[in-house]
Amino acid sequence: MIPFNKPFIIGNELKYIEEAVKSGKISGDGLFTKKCNQFFESRYGFQKVLLTTSCTDALEMAAILCNIKEGDEVIVPSYTFVSSANAFALRGAKIVFVDSEANQPNICVKEIEKHITSKTKVIIPVHYAGVACDMEAIMNLAKAHHLIVVEDAAQAIDSYYTFSNGTRKPLGSIGHMAAFSFHETKNVIAGEGGLLAINDPQYNERAEIIREKGTNRSAFFRGEVNKYGWVDIGSSFLPSELISAFLYAQLEHIDQIQEKRISIWNKYYKGLKGLENSGYIQLPVIPENATNNGHMFYIVCKNYEERTGLINYLKKFDIHPVFHYLSLNKSEFFLSNNASIDIPNSDRYTDCLLRLPFFYELKEEEQTCVINHINEFYLNK
Amino acid sequence: MIPFNKPFIIGNELKYIEEAVKSGKISGDGLFTKKCNQFFESRYGFQKVLLTTSCTDALEMAAILCNIKEGDEVIVPSYTFVSSANAFALRGAKIVFVDSEANQPNICVKEIEKHITSKTKVIIPVHYAGVACDMEAIMNLAKAHHLIVVEDAAQAIDSYYTFSNGTRKPLGSIGHMAAFSFHETKNVIAGEGGLLAINDPQYNERAEIIREKGTNRSAFFRGEVNKYGWVDIGSSFLPSELISAFLYAQLEHIDQIQEKRISIWNKYYKGLKGLENSGYIQLPVIPENATNNGHMFYIVCKNYEERTGLINYLKKFDIHPVFHYLSLNKSEFFLSNNASIDIPNSDRYTDCLLRLPFFYELKEEEQTCVINHINEFYLNK
Repeated sequence: MIPFNKPFIIGNELKYIEEAVKSGKISGDGLFTKKCNQFFESRYGFQKVLLTTSCTDALEMAAILCNIKEGDEVIVPSYTFVSSANAFALRGAKIVFVDSEANQPNICVKEIEKHITSKTKVIIPVHYAGVACDMEAIMNLAKAHHLIVVEDAAQAIDSYYTFSNGTRKPLGSIGHMAAFSFHETKNVIAGEGGLLAINDPQYNERAEIIREKGTNRSAFFRGEVNKYGWVDIGSSFLPSELISAFLYAQLEHIDQIQEKRISIWNKYYKGLKGLENSGYIQLPVIPENATNNGHMFYIVCKNYEERTGLINYLKKFDIHPVFHYLSLNKSEFFLSNNASIDIPNSDRYTDCLLRLPFFYELKEEEQTCVINHINEFYLNK
Repeated sequence: MIPFNKPFIIGNELKYIEEAVKSGKISGDGLFTKKCNQFFESRYGFQKVLLTTSCTDALEMAAILCNIKEGDEVIVPSYTFVSSANAFALRGAKIVFVDSEANQPNICVKEIEKHITSKTKVIIPVHYAGVACDMEAIMNLAKAHHLIVVEDAAQAIDSYYTFSNGTRKPLGSIGHMAAFSFHETKNVIAGEGGLLAINDPQYNERAEIIREKGTNRSAFFRGEVNKYGWVDIGSSFLPSELISAFLYAQLEHIDQIQEKRISIWNKYYKGLKGLENSGYIQLPVIPENATNNGHMFYIVCKNYEERTGLINYLKKFDIHPVFHYLSLNKSEFFLSNNASIDIPNSDRYTDCLLRLPFFYELKEEEQTCVINHINEFYLNK
């Protein structure tokens, strides 16, 4: 059986959990959370990093930091995970869905521009499959219209974007804030987990407060105030040290993980390129100013029926690819408050995109088997 | 050094984490989350249990399930953790603070009654130190005024309440819902973690949706709907299997943990009873219809200065007791939206209550040392 995903232990995960217990602290913000935060700040230059219990929670922190009020508009791609929108809906925002590019699922900048109104407050570029959105254009739009940019970088760890002046920046370091995920399907994992990266220091102080249930506890522990109390709304966004200890052990091997994942990606690309050349399927596109972080490999089939046929064919060999998002503009929740709208590219990815088995421990012969059966499906039709 | 708290490993915590990884699933709602849920449902008869990333998150789920709208009033003791109030403030509730009893920190039922208005929607009894609030009176009030009761049972695992007809029920099984904590300071721990117990089945379906980012994914996996999508607001309240695997290993030893903790509690009580008899301090009160779950041992000093003196005295011997909450009605957040109010018993616990070192691995000789030094402090004054 070749599953879609498989979590893995790569180094000192269990040893570090034991160490955390012995250190006398396994609630949030202990030794390993600090090590993780430092790792991200130093490797990617994020101005401030706050580990969270999930990427969803990081997005919810961002929504509170953006001070979303009833009726504020937030621009989100329709082809994304529900949390990209829900985190802002929770605070009363009106979600404005925008289409993907025709050649890849990332948000279309021209479409963003059309949807900006006087009520627009935030843009959420989602770096699908870890491939950068057109961040230069998005940051320019945001500047012109005084908008906040929150990168949904759930899939985008260790991926980069190059500006037209040649400056290369890690994804998550470009917007005002960014949210990452360590869900078990991601490159580095902790089962569930996330982080909020803050690149604009004006949000630092309130972010610490919001993350600590609305208290100024962090400032208290630094000796900046002489008692701490309830000063704002907030939640418990801190992960257990069990999570950060596990995560830190993975981060120590990030280069090894990335090398392996990129080689898996390249083998898929090479093995399926013939099908794209013959017009059967569409493969992922990596724009020149973006990089490939080996997060995911997907193909785009011609239509829903063909994709269903391929899924069923592969299942016969115990291979388990999975489709991805359903256009959020067609969701029951959106339609209960909004008129129906047409977002064609998002619908096409909803119906036709298929993600192939992809995990650190995927064996070469397993991958060869997946590639061969996909080729068989198309060429023996 | 005798710390206030110390996390511990009691059995298969690390082995189960390894098993979770090998099982192929460490994101939420895997094997160990199900085992934990079943444990709680069968041991305590909660109608439905949903593990969460923290007790704060369980309270936030409850606030969404109560359908809190701007201006709804929620009655909360002033002497409690910020999350008991904040979870409802996040949804726009007006928080109505009520005083504790004079002889113990639990909410005073007579005071609740005085504060019920036509806008009151929810009462939050907090079982301080795991000792039951007067649940019969609270449930009667709720019935008479059509209110929802959400037990804040953060500290109350394995504690019971006896109704006047002789029926004995576990705390957390009496209100419409209840929130528990597995923070490292609790009886059974996972660093950070919690659960929502639902006792009124009308909340079951929506609870599953809210916990899964507002999607009907749980119903999909049970085959009740043929695809899942965004149907409601929600968040990612599921803990990683790393958390539930650790927690389950602790739950397997709950009787052993409880036995040890109750013996620690009894030793403190016996060792400090003389000081209470002589009028120096006040010890915890366990009402006849409540039980002692060995969660916490506190003393109530005469005043703030005396408590500070005692803390400093014990620190000289490297003993680290800690005070607890600050009256929430005096918080910056509350006062920024409300007039100042007087809540005297809560203020007294704020100033005078002191929690003594209390953890599973506390050694007899360490505890003797704490008891002796407290007696010395008062008797040699």
